[in-house]
Amino acid sequence: MDSKLPLYERFARELEAQILAGTFPEGSRLPALRESSESRGLSLSTVIQAYRLLETKGLIEARPQSGYYVKPKPRARHLEPDPEPAREAPTSVSIDELSLELFRDTQDPDVAKFGAASPDPELLPTSRLNRILAELAREDRFSVDTSVQPEGCEELRVQIAQRAFAAGCPLRPDEVLITAGCTEAMALVLQTLCKPGDLVAIESPTYFGFLLLLEALGLRALEIPSNPGTGLSLEALEFALENHPVKAVFAIPNFSNPLGSLMPDASKKRLVEMLAAKGIPLIENDIYGELYFGEWRPPVARSFDEEGSVILCSSFSKDISPGYRIGWVAAGRRFPDMLKLKIAINSGTSVLPQLTIARYLESGGYDLHLRKIRKAYARKTAEMSRAIEEYFPEGTRVSEPEGGYLLWVRLPSGIDSLELYREAIAARIAIAPGYIFSPSHKHRDYIRLNAAVWSERLHKDLARLGRLVGKLA
Amino acid sequence: MDSKLPLYERFARELEAQILAGTFPEGSRLPALRESSESRGLSLSTVIQAYRLLETKGLIEARPQSGYYVKPKPRARHLEPDPEPAREAPTSVSIDELSLELFRDTQDPDVAKFGAASPDPELLPTSRLNRILAELAREDRFSVDTSVQPEGCEELRVQIAQRAFAAGCPLRPDEVLITAGCTEAMALVLQTLCKPGDLVAIESPTYFGFLLLLEALGLRALEIPSNPGTGLSLEALEFALENHPVKAVFAIPNFSNPLGSLMPDASKKRLVEMLAAKGIPLIENDIYGELYFGEWRPPVARSFDEEGSVILCSSFSKDISPGYRIGWVAAGRRFPDMLKLKIAINSGTSVLPQLTIARYLESGGYDLHLRKIRKAYARKTAEMSRAIEEYFPEGTRVSEPEGGYLLWVRLPSGIDSLELYREAIAARIAIAPGYIFSPSHKHRDYIRLNAAVWSERLHKDLARLGRLVGKLA
Repeated sequence: MDSKLPLYERFARELEAQILAGTFPEGSRLPALRESSESRGLSLSTVIQAYRLLETKGLIEARPQSGYYVKPKPRARHLEPDPEPAREAPTSVSIDELSLELFRDTQDPDVAKFGAASPDPELLPTSRLNRILAELAREDRFSVDTSVQPEGCEELRVQIAQRAFAAGCPLRPDEVLITAGCTEAMALVLQTLCKPGDLVAIESPTYFGFLLLLEALGLRALEIPSNPGTGLSLEALEFALENHPVKAVFAIPNFSNPLGSLMPDASKKRLVEMLAAKGIPLIENDIYGELYFGEWRPPVARSFDEEGSVILCSSFSKDISPGYRIGWVAAGRRFPDMLKLKIAINSGTSVLPQLTIARYLESGGYDLHLRKIRKAYARKTAEMSRAIEEYFPEGTRVSEPEGGYLLWVRLPSGIDSLELYREAIAARIAIAPGYIFSPSHKHRDYIRLNAAVWSERLHKDLARLGRLVGKLA
Repeated sequence: MDSKLPLYERFARELEAQILAGTFPEGSRLPALRESSESRGLSLSTVIQAYRLLETKGLIEARPQSGYYVKPKPRARHLEPDPEPAREAPTSVSIDELSLELFRDTQDPDVAKFGAASPDPELLPTSRLNRILAELAREDRFSVDTSVQPEGCEELRVQIAQRAFAAGCPLRPDEVLITAGCTEAMALVLQTLCKPGDLVAIESPTYFGFLLLLEALGLRALEIPSNPGTGLSLEALEFALENHPVKAVFAIPNFSNPLGSLMPDASKKRLVEMLAAKGIPLIENDIYGELYFGEWRPPVARSFDEEGSVILCSSFSKDISPGYRIGWVAAGRRFPDMLKLKIAINSGTSVLPQLTIARYLESGGYDLHLRKIRKAYARKTAEMSRAIEEYFPEGTRVSEPEGGYLLWVRLPSGIDSLELYREAIAARIAIAPGYIFSPSHKHRDYIRLNAAVWSERLHKDLARLGRLVGKLA
């Protein structure tokens, strides 16, 4: 900053920068004159001069007996904003940039949210959770939990073990580590099992969040083909394991992201045995496992595991709340190492959301809730799938998921999903380009669509997307 | 499991194992017969046989119209438990094992908690926070926040920027990243600035949590002497920087942990200039900065930074709630890289505690709260310091912190703090041995005591600790 300016002007400029940066949003009160004077070591008259200067510039206003407030910015009237220019499809783009954009798209209220795999906000038990929160707050339940348990709250770990037992997969509460969502669970597993440079076998296509993790941790991916019906190809995996020094295998056997595939029980068993024989751990992600469209909850691969070679990760982000950020990992004999790592990187998971979810699970109603949302997601997925067939051009192919709420769509030949992504987002429609579901960008002619948010009023957006596809075909 | 056993007996054994593991605690209800039958693919009669077997063994009981419940374990009456044998001081122990023990010690209600640096639960605004939580839950405020913002909630980021401005350190809300406590903030900074094998200069002694982080991330530490009065020795640092390829410097200029030292403003300025000139970033931890005993809040080193070389980390764990796990980092130009990493490793921080803290800060009362706890911690620290002088043998030396609530105590010569730690914990007194505040275990004859929990009724525990010291002298 120019040190030749008088003090009051320098302070005024600093304050102006903060107002523009949003530190003091429109309508907010600036620090009192005396407060600014004391905290900044400026004389009161310097501070007054600075505030008056900003007042003259129309940035702030004095309110009698109250102080200085940031004035609303004048807005141009009756002038439509220029349409956002269509972004050029870059020749090269990284998965992390695109996935960051997917997050941003989700936050824009005007965008049709077919991109990120967020659940339908209407299908979360939010008001029930809010009642429990208020209840726990009234009971002063949170005052005893001022210290953090790095492994997570006992109540929640017990509930997770009980549900796992009911689902035919006995876990011990003391091997369950609570994490910030399933993402952190997978991060802890990878950091415990692998060191930078190690090779991890993954389904292709697979969840791009896992690819971000591999990149962040300096790990390499070995792509194993996966198909929309039965998931990971065991033949291809077996061949790969014989030819590459694979340190761990990552899979989503129940309703993979993005395929929605369900690995048959016999294949899960074979997968587990194959890996146990080679001493290679399986990292199993089961976040969609409860969202089955069929009669029964499919078992997790972990339930076929007798050697402790499967590490099961899951979360409550799809069925209870994404914003709570509560996941878990059944770490088995790796529990002590993962706990040490958890302590090192963040000391433990926030207590409020853990206790709220534990109370929700204890109090019943979760099973009823799951029955309701399973039906809803099955219906939404089927309806959106039909609508795609209606609106998209000839040659389009859609997956037939057996659970979850994701659709994997093959575009008519020659269409680049990244180009479609750019066109679509300019038209305020978010999609996930197939590009980001493989580290070698194999699935360029696919897109993933989120059916969780599907409703009648999105027909027109999907129809517009279909026309964009037609235009590019 | 023995596959020759009849099915019902195998299922009964599995259930028994789960009861012993705590999946079904005393008094809890077992899954209904039909539920177990369906979920496990067993016939109803097999399940009934299994439950009856456990009933006969006295593990569970049937309650009419309700189901089977886990019976309380019979307890021996009037028999005192054997005193816990004093653990042997191991010849070698790792910092991560000891720090895990410190966490455990904190959770044992019968232990005098001089070990971990937890704040006094009585000095947290818990009931105020609970009221805000209940208020937000009633307003249904959390329903709009089902999607996660990886960078954190806008409201909270604005509050943090406003407070920083008031303290003379202008930050832009859009460079503030919300994290799971200050620990995660530091983890993100280290992973963004360094790669495995890199060298980080640290104060010696320093907070052992940072040493855990360095170890977890495969980084190396270079110890720079720090003194109880003015903190980090700039002369030693300058010399070190000329002779070693240091990638970053970590310091706690305001009330270091464990020394409680306060670096003078002129030294902060010199430190910042020295590092800026060499292009080495400073990782500044300011979690104790608000807990000053003097007249004024000491400035952060970041406020002397004109080159963007200081990355400021802090949290609300010492003054609002440790269990909320909310911290932040003012990442400056490294914001995009840290955000990418945050997305990769856990997608974002839990929303509930963020909004609760934001509302607490907005609603005022925080400054009043801080004034109250500053006084209380100054008093506790002074009183405990006097009590140490009273109860500990000749030759003991105590630090004179200018803020925070930690005391750094030099034991009379020849006493090994690790041996004292073992003796003390056997006597149900937790302390932090000096051993863990340096990667080379330099400070063996020191202990750190937490004065936050100090109260009249702890005199007898401190006196016992003093006698143990005397015994070892």
